[in-house]
Amino acid sequence: MTTPIDATRHIGILVFDQMEELDAVGPWEVFAWWAQHFQGDGWAVTTFSADGGPVTCEKTLVIQPHHSTATVPPLDVFLHPGGDGTRGMLEDASHLQWLREQRQHVPLMTSVCTGATVFAAAGLLHDRPATTNRTALDQLTRLDETIIVKPGQQYVDDGDIITAAGISAGIDMALHIVGRLTTLERSRQVRDGIEYYPEPASDGEYVPAADPRAGQPGYRERSPTEST
Amino acid sequence: MTTPIDATRHIGILVFDQMEELDAVGPWEVFAWWAQHFQGDGWAVTTFSADGGPVTCEKTLVIQPHHSTATVPPLDVFLHPGGDGTRGMLEDASHLQWLREQRQHVPLMTSVCTGATVFAAAGLLHDRPATTNRTALDQLTRLDETIIVKPGQQYVDDGDIITAAGISAGIDMALHIVGRLTTLERSRQVRDGIEYYPEPASDGEYVPAADPRAGQPGYRERSPTEST
Repeated sequence: MTTPIDATRHIGILVFDQMEELDAVGPWEVFAWWAQHFQGDGWAVTTFSADGGPVTCEKTLVIQPHHSTATVPPLDVFLHPGGDGTRGMLEDASHLQWLREQRQHVPLMTSVCTGATVFAAAGLLHDRPATTNRTALDQLTRLDETIIVKPGQQYVDDGDIITAAGISAGIDMALHIVGRLTTLERSRQVRDGIEYYPEPASDGEYVPAADPRAGQPGYRERSPTEST
Repeated sequence: MTTPIDATRHIGILVFDQMEELDAVGPWEVFAWWAQHFQGDGWAVTTFSADGGPVTCEKTLVIQPHHSTATVPPLDVFLHPGGDGTRGMLEDASHLQWLREQRQHVPLMTSVCTGATVFAAAGLLHDRPATTNRTALDQLTRLDETIIVKPGQQYVDDGDIITAAGISAGIDMALHIVGRLTTLERSRQVRDGIEYYPEPASDGEYVPAADPRAGQPGYRERSPTEST
């Protein structure tokens, strides 16, 4: 069954100055890869900033979003990244009020890294389990002592709110969301598509070229004097 | 020991139209997190496009790089992402020639995803082990039959060239490179910093809020009628 175009459901990722790059671009890649390869699922993903202008991320990368808050389509899933830019947001009454308004309309509110601290400041995590960057777990409790902090999980799914741990945990959360919105099979297809099979921490040792070739079809020892 | 400013070593990530977003931003996050938190190591990372202008990535994200090829500092490590934009590069004689010139000056040439196909077209992978996106492994051989294709690895380290598999494998490669350039301990610190502890494929099942709270300090059953 093909989903009619006007039935497209939208995932929106907020971007802002001093946002942590991978907090946004990790989930972006997961959702966008899914939307591109499985258009019949009927989902789209977009990015937006408060005024629609470009943002300078925490590590200095500049991203030009697709929309402003005024032009972004009605969202089915909202994602709030983290980063140093969240510090000011904790006391930005208009941003917190805007978040509370989103809560009234958006079925699934999600955060990555210290994005959860902004949710906490807006009161969205009251009496709920949640996580954030491991260096900000205490801050969650300071912002709202009713939050049940869950260390040691890549993300915490509380139904209509999902919070992820630090930075790359947003990728795990996004794959989980794809699974929730569709099927485990689809989530695995996206995981395979982006080849998310991370390896254990490497010591970065250089394995001489001859070693990985040994036993391979076409393998032959290279003479030390042979040019590459 | 503090490294003098003029001894800074540079990692450069090329960006281009139809580049796959995470191919670049995954390694960017790893390298930038490292450079920010361990400035004494003396490394910096930057991005650049051919003309210094913004690029529109494969999934439609727009990124404004820091430099053009004319202004980027001399590189110690070069990273070539993949994506649909590499297709045209395979027959872009000036880009391939530029890559061969980089090879003469840059000690460590690296690629993510189909970035390896461009290296292959430039002749950089002749008689070497390499990998690429799993859907492009055959293409590597078609471009240069002497390449020893290595499926099933997140990256292939051949000393002065490292090629990564698809999309998110660039994160694994970048952590490996940090380890090679410094120590295993440093690589693990960066891995911990970005909380790269990916979970197995999830079925996205919603675990009711009460479950994760059970047994936690402060846990209490929420009445079904209690507002959140």
